[in-house]
Amino acid sequence: MPEPVLQRARTELMNYRGSGMSVMEMSHRSPVFTEIFTETKEKFREMLRVPESHEILFLQGGATLQFAAIPMNLMEGGTADYAVTGNFSNKAAKEAEKYGTVHLACSTADSGHNRIPGQEELSLTPGAKYFYYCANNTIYGTEWQYVPETAAPLVCDMSSDILSRPVDVSRYGLIYAGAQKNMAPAGLTVVIVDKALAGRELPYTPQIMSYAMMIKHDSLLNTPPCWCIYMLSLVLDWLKEQGGVEGMEQWKKQRAKLLYDCLDESRLFHPHALPGSRSDMNVTFRTDSAELDAEFIRFAAERGLVNLKGHKVAGGMRASIYNAMPMEGVKLLADTIKEFERNHV
Amino acid sequence: MPEPVLQRARTELMNYRGSGMSVMEMSHRSPVFTEIFTETKEKFREMLRVPESHEILFLQGGATLQFAAIPMNLMEGGTADYAVTGNFSNKAAKEAEKYGTVHLACSTADSGHNRIPGQEELSLTPGAKYFYYCANNTIYGTEWQYVPETAAPLVCDMSSDILSRPVDVSRYGLIYAGAQKNMAPAGLTVVIVDKALAGRELPYTPQIMSYAMMIKHDSLLNTPPCWCIYMLSLVLDWLKEQGGVEGMEQWKKQRAKLLYDCLDESRLFHPHALPGSRSDMNVTFRTDSAELDAEFIRFAAERGLVNLKGHKVAGGMRASIYNAMPMEGVKLLADTIKEFERNHV
Repeated sequence: MPEPVLQRARTELMNYRGSGMSVMEMSHRSPVFTEIFTETKEKFREMLRVPESHEILFLQGGATLQFAAIPMNLMEGGTADYAVTGNFSNKAAKEAEKYGTVHLACSTADSGHNRIPGQEELSLTPGAKYFYYCANNTIYGTEWQYVPETAAPLVCDMSSDILSRPVDVSRYGLIYAGAQKNMAPAGLTVVIVDKALAGRELPYTPQIMSYAMMIKHDSLLNTPPCWCIYMLSLVLDWLKEQGGVEGMEQWKKQRAKLLYDCLDESRLFHPHALPGSRSDMNVTFRTDSAELDAEFIRFAAERGLVNLKGHKVAGGMRASIYNAMPMEGVKLLADTIKEFERNHV
Repeated sequence: MPEPVLQRARTELMNYRGSGMSVMEMSHRSPVFTEIFTETKEKFREMLRVPESHEILFLQGGATLQFAAIPMNLMEGGTADYAVTGNFSNKAAKEAEKYGTVHLACSTADSGHNRIPGQEELSLTPGAKYFYYCANNTIYGTEWQYVPETAAPLVCDMSSDILSRPVDVSRYGLIYAGAQKNMAPAGLTVVIVDKALAGRELPYTPQIMSYAMMIKHDSLLNTPPCWCIYMLSLVLDWLKEQGGVEGMEQWKKQRAKLLYDCLDESRLFHPHALPGSRSDMNVTFRTDSAELDAEFIRFAAERGLVNLKGHKVAGGMRASIYNAMPMEGVKLLADTIKEFERNHV
C-alpha cells in the first residue's frame, strides 16, 4: 500500500469527511457510502478507460470464486480454451472441468512455466465459449506481453498486474482481479464484464455468482466489502497523482529492467523466466544451490528485504514489485544481489 | 463499531505492533498475519464456547453466498425444512430450491412477519437434511426466543444477533453470520460448522463454497479478508472487557426493554412485533400514519438520530441497537419518542 494512501485512511478512519462515522460502520445503502461507491466506480472506469459496453462489478471471493463463476456464467456446458502458464491458470482450468469441457490451449508445465507461448503455439477450439488466460503469473514470474488473438471472447485474470499498465478493455469479454496486489486490501474482487455476455448462467448458479444478477443490482445484491471499496478509491486518487496507468507502466518497466539487468549480468544468480516472457511484477531468480538461495534470503532479510523467498512450488527467490513498491526498494535489492555475489564468486 | 475499537485500529493502521506494516498490506501467509488469524479464531472459540466438534471458518460472500453454500453442501438433493419468518429466510429458501426440495416449516408472511411461530406450529419433514431458520429478523424486528427441537441438524443465520448472547453451539449443525452487524466491517462471514456434516457437497459445488475444502485449508484456500479478521480480533477484545456474550446479553435486554416499554406505553406509536417474538437488536414501530412516520424520522434526525427509517419492504421505523450501541443512544431515542408524542397527542 502506498504510504500516502495509508495516511489518508488513518486520518479519515474515525470520522469520514465530517460524516461522524467510520466507513467501517456505514450502511451500504446510506447516501454517504453510495457516494463513495459511485465515485470509486467512476474513477476506476476513467483510470482504465472501461467502455460503456462493459460493467464494473465490486465483488467478494477473490480469483478462486471467479474460477467457478466464469464457467458457470459463460461456458453454457460447452468447451472453453484455457492457457495454462502457471499455478492459478491451472487451478482455474481444473475448477472449470466441473462445468463443461476444458481444452488446453497451451501448457508450459514441461518447462517449469518459464515462458509464455507465442500466438502460433495456441491451440484454439472452433466455437469455444471463451479463451481464458492469466496475464501475469506471480509464482513463476512470467507475463503475457501480447493479447491473444481468438474468435472466442477473451477472459483474463489480471489479479497481479491490473492498473500497472493501460489495457484495451474493449478486446476482452471479461477481466477480473483480486484487489490485494495493486488495488486495495484483500476481500474485494473487481470484475469488468461485457454486458452482452451476461445472462447465460447454468441453472444452479448461485445468485451471488451470477454476473447478470450483479449487473442488475449494480454489485449491491448484498452488502459489499465497503472498506475495501473505499481503500480502492484512495488508491485510485494516488494512482492519478502518479500519472495513472501510463505512469505506472513507466515505473514498472524501470523497476523490472534494473533487476533483470542485474540478474542477467550476474555469474551467481539466474532469472527463471525467459526474455520476452518476463514479468514486470514478479521477478523470479535463483542460484544453482538451494543452500545458497537460503543464505541469500537471510542476507537480504538482514538488510530489511523480506518476503524474498519464492513460492513453495517454485523455490528460489521472488521479488514482488507491485505498483506501491518504490524505486529505492528495487535499488536496494539490486545492490544486495551484487554485494552477495561479490562475497561468493 | 465501538469507539475504542476504531481508536485502536487507527493507532495500529500504519504499523501493526512494530511489524513496520499495515495489516492491509500483509501477506496472508506471513507469520505476523498467521498469528492474527490464529488468535482471532481462538478468541472467537473462547467467546462463544465453540466445541472442538465444530470448525470456525472465516469466509467471504456474506449470507447471500451461504444461501447457496448450505444446500450445496448439506441438502444432497433431498429435502430441507425452512422456517420463513422474514426477508432473509425467504431469500434463503428461494435460493435452496435450486438444489433440492424446500419444505416450508412455517411462514409468518400472512401476519406481516410480526411473530415467531411456536415449536408446535413447526411442520417438520421426516428425514429432512436440515432445518433452517434466521435467529433475528432485522427488517421486521422479531427474534427466535427458543431453539427449535428437530431431528434434522439445525442451521441458523445469526448475522444480526451473533455475539449478543450465549449460544449452545453443540445443538447446531451450522451457524453462520455476516460480520457487519456485531463483529467487523462488511466483507467477512463467520461459519461455525459441525465437522461431521462436511464432505457431502453436490459435484458442481465451487471449491470456495465447499465446507470440507475450507476446513481442510483452515479457511486459507485463498486469500481471506485479512483486515476484517483483524478488526474482529479487536472487537473480540472489546467484548471480553464488556463481560463477553453474557455482558452483551444483559445490555441488549436493558436497551430493548427501555424502548419496548416506551412504545407499549405510547398512544401514538405501536411496536410491530408481538410480545414473546420481539427482537432485542431491531425494534420496529410505527404510528397509524405514513406522513407522521416521515415527520418523526425528520424530527429524530434533527436530534442526531439517523438511520431510523424502516426497510422499504416494511415501512415505519426501525431502531437497530447492535452490540456497539451505547445506552445513551437508546435513552435519547426514548426521550425523542416521548417528546414527539407530547407534541402530537
